[in-house]
Amino acid sequence: MEENKCENIARYISEIQRKGNIFFLKELADLSLGYGQFNYLMELYKKDGVRQEDLSLSLNIDKGTTARAIKKLETEGFINKIHDENDKRAYRIFLTDKALRNKEAIYEVAIKWESNITNKLTIEERELMLKLLKKCI
Amino acid sequence: MEENKCENIARYISEIQRKGNIFFLKELADLSLGYGQFNYLMELYKKDGVRQEDLSLSLNIDKGTTARAIKKLETEGFINKIHDENDKRAYRIFLTDKALRNKEAIYEVAIKWESNITNKLTIEERELMLKLLKKCI
Repeated sequence: MEENKCENIARYISEIQRKGNIFFLKELADLSLGYGQFNYLMELYKKDGVRQEDLSLSLNIDKGTTARAIKKLETEGFINKIHDENDKRAYRIFLTDKALRNKEAIYEVAIKWESNITNKLTIEERELMLKLLKKCI
Repeated sequence: MEENKCENIARYISEIQRKGNIFFLKELADLSLGYGQFNYLMELYKKDGVRQEDLSLSLNIDKGTTARAIKKLETEGFINKIHDENDKRAYRIFLTDKALRNKEAIYEVAIKWESNITNKLTIEERELMLKLLKKCI
């Protein structure tokens, strides 16, 4: 059926992501984090002190979802929200000592998951996959 | 950084899936369905009357998640659970008239999403992408 053929790419992506959610939930359980907060933390490790709005933009996630993830990260003691000195309505997000202490462990989870999904691909296939995925965004 | 490079494929897949969740939530809102139930419905359109256990297996989703999705589909009137004649502990899942009436609309949502993510790919790239995704499962 034409419909079945059409459905495939979306379905494989969904299946990989579902496995990822289970993987991250398990791997990050000790830190009380899920994949929803994980992406933000990874981004903050690269850009500590970034404005909340810019975090939304760079992750391409809407403001409401970002606000909820930031709230959870704050509750779990991974970040502090500080008013932007130049714009009091805006917040900048800073990593706490707890976040910095766990940086290596969190990167390891990321590397482990990437390895899980790509370990059957050659280096060339990984590059190709990235190129194709970018065209799907 | 090595870590950033490693993270990429997982992150793109996550981004596409996140957009998919938003897309399906919007497109299926009138039917009170989300992407979590959508995959089951698509599978049932192909195999109406399948055992709940086999549905889990063919979608590669654990029994607990399947039970919740089936419950939601039942509550919304899309399926009926009937005891298997040969094994009273097992259930077979049957589509209702409501599910059959909405089959075309639901397939259209699937086709629209697949088209959204693959419309920049050539036919060859789609085939290649499928091949690579299968190696990531």
